[in-house]
Amino acid sequence: MNKERLAAFTDAVLAIIMTILVLELEKPKTVNLAGLWDLRANFFAYTLSFFWLGLMWTTHHNNWHSITKVSNATVSYSLLMLFIASLFPYTTSLVATNFNNVTAQTFYGLVVLGVSFSNMAISHSLKQVNPSVHFGWLYALPNTSIILDVVIKLIGLLITLTVYPPAMMYAIFINIFVVGYASRQAIKKQPKKS
Amino acid sequence: MNKERLAAFTDAVLAIIMTILVLELEKPKTVNLAGLWDLRANFFAYTLSFFWLGLMWTTHHNNWHSITKVSNATVSYSLLMLFIASLFPYTTSLVATNFNNVTAQTFYGLVVLGVSFSNMAISHSLKQVNPSVHFGWLYALPNTSIILDVVIKLIGLLITLTVYPPAMMYAIFINIFVVGYASRQAIKKQPKKS
Amino acid sequence: MNKERLAAFTDAVLAIIMTILVLELEKPKTVNLAGLWDLRANFFAYTLSFFWLGLMWTTHHNNWHSITKVSNATVSYSLLMLFIASLFPYTTSLVATNFNNVTAQTFYGLVVLGVSFSNMAISHSLKQVNPSVHFGWLYALPNTSIILDVVIKLIGLLITLTVYPPAMMYAIFINIFVVGYASRQAIKKQPKKS
Amino acid sequence: MNKERLAAFTDAVLAIIMTILVLELEKPKTVNLAGLWDLRANFFAYTLSFFWLGLMWTTHHNNWHSITKVSNATVSYSLLMLFIASLFPYTTSLVATNFNNVTAQTFYGLVVLGVSFSNMAISHSLKQVNPSVHFGWLYALPNTSIILDVVIKLIGLLITLTVYPPAMMYAIFINIFVVGYASRQAIKKQPKKS
Repeated sequence: MNKERLAAFTDAVLAIIMTILVLELEKPKTVNLAGLWDLRANFFAYTLSFFWLGLMWTTHHNNWHSITKVSNATVSYSLLMLFIASLFPYTTSLVATNFNNVTAQTFYGLVVLGVSFSNMAISHSLKQVNPSVHFGWLYALPNTSIILDVVIKLIGLLITLTVYPPAMMYAIFINIFVVGYASRQAIKKQPKKS
Repeated sequence: MNKERLAAFTDAVLAIIMTILVLELEKPKTVNLAGLWDLRANFFAYTLSFFWLGLMWTTHHNNWHSITKVSNATVSYSLLMLFIASLFPYTTSLVATNFNNVTAQTFYGLVVLGVSFSNMAISHSLKQVNPSVHFGWLYALPNTSIILDVVIKLIGLLITLTVYPPAMMYAIFINIFVVGYASRQAIKKQPKKS
Repeated sequence: MNKERLAAFTDAVLAIIMTILVLELEKPKTVNLAGLWDLRANFFAYTLSFFWLGLMWTTHHNNWHSITKVSNATVSYSLLMLFIASLFPYTTSLVATNFNNVTAQTFYGLVVLGVSFSNMAISHSLKQVNPSVHFGWLYALPNTSIILDVVIKLIGLLITLTVYPPAMMYAIFINIFVVGYASRQAIKKQPKKS
Repeated sequence: MNKERLAAFTDAVLAIIMTILVLELEKPKTVNLAGLWDLRANFFAYTLSFFWLGLMWTTHHNNWHSITKVSNATVSYSLLMLFIASLFPYTTSLVATNFNNVTAQTFYGLVVLGVSFSNMAISHSLKQVNPSVHFGWLYALPNTSIILDVVIKLIGLLITLTVYPPAMMYAIFINIFVVGYASRQAIKKQPKKS
């Protein structure tokens, strides 16, 4: 399979997911500031999902730039990743209207974790057929930042399951900055290429 | 017509179909494990449709790689295939909420069979204008696996129409593995190219 | 502006329109053959819109192949065409649930006519900046078939407005075959190029 | 990151936003001219949003043609712009059903202003990595037309907040012609390139 066509398909599905999120965004009961304020969990969930997917797309994009081949395993893991990601509009809507609900928050968190692990599988499959690239567990990101990422999410999940349901989303919110920062550092450290 | 533009259009429509499936996925009445469990038919139908379409896209993709020309017949059959495939969100939703209903299961099965037969017509049209490719009934897949595929689906349809309505979807579920395995074997047997 | 990016944007919008049509397709009240039969106007409208747009895309595609430049006017007319075409899911849904309604049928017909005239404007703008192509009123289609096309639609509109509301859709249905046939003949007559 | 892939992703998201606007377009209660006339605010809002986004896409497109590199800042600002733009179906629907509502009109206006300012940030980031292009505040558009654009929108916002809520949308409507005209003049003044 051809790298460009798989990348284009991945981009298309991610673009559609990010854009149809809005179709699930609830309308205010009364159209004034108080009505919009009542929907603050909805707007937070919408914003979080959009930028989490956007950041994920950016990471994907930056790192596919340097590879030349994809394997059959890459295609299978990409389909798996897109399948899990396709649940975003569903779990975002669920968590937006049930912000303090353990099941909704856990489901949202599992989808995020599922996409992360699928991306590690994609990264692993690419490393095997592109011996010249230097990938860690998730593309060129340093492994320490991946451990940090997963640990924060698992702590969030634990707090969600025990004492405070919304912890999951706050953990993911914090993580956007952690991974964003790590990704930026990793790019700076890369040897320069044309 | 240009091969790349037809392939891109096909990919776009398939990506949209796969991604809007989620808009028809029912929300749980009570947001807890029991509420999600009540929707198990919905999640099964969603997952089956997503991966069936994904596998179909993969097969399409792998085999279009080797062709150089498309004919007017390819365009017509592609439109027909996309039309039938565009009914997926509709029949998936129908079957998800009426899992034991003969009409819903039959409609779902006929859409799957219709896409399969359209793809054989596409494959046939490509073989005629690309004499150098060695296509069977469905691209490079061995004909025996196509017969197996159609026979399993027809048996599923027969059981659906007579004694057990859900048989259709279970037959398609089994078929994903059969065709997936056959496709993988076929790729391994292909003479190596750059 | 670059021809490829405009063509890709046009294709994307048309692919999305064709695929979200299904979101407006009504579900049967009772899931059996009688329930589906009650929706025959819906399925007819859905099928007609899908293939009308598909044929329009094919014509667009076949003829953009031979041009090398697009002008600012091409961009403006393309936006106008996509705007009118974007109303398809709306008018299709309207006409499907109000098949015998004069306003619904007229609105549906005006959208179809609006797309046709916008395409003639696109074709005209392309002819001006690509002196080497031999376009008539609508790309390489013979002008006589365009006259036939418009006349049949106007007769349909007239009958819709006076004695029989559904006439509009039947006229468009007939027209798919007329324009499809004309398009095929035009392609056969074209001088061969590589 | 690669310019083409970012441009393609931007185009895909904008194409989807423009096309799913129609899913929020209200259906007439009675299907006749009076029923459609009751929805005139809906159709106005739909048309305004579609062409505003379309013109924005055209400007984006015309100016990305001349650049060769994008920076990490371009990617971040593009995600921000797409995020704000993704709210269009939401605010369009809100303003369509609450045309005389201050909050709805202000929200709609802030989304439009937010997209404009994000585009200026994108333009600024491109200027920094493409020293050979001559960009003002917003691509090659003359700065005076940008000042005019922002001033008209702010006056519209002021009137919306004080005496006449619909002023925001009318200001944006007027602005389409102002910016469209300025954009056309700017293109004419550009030194010719192949």
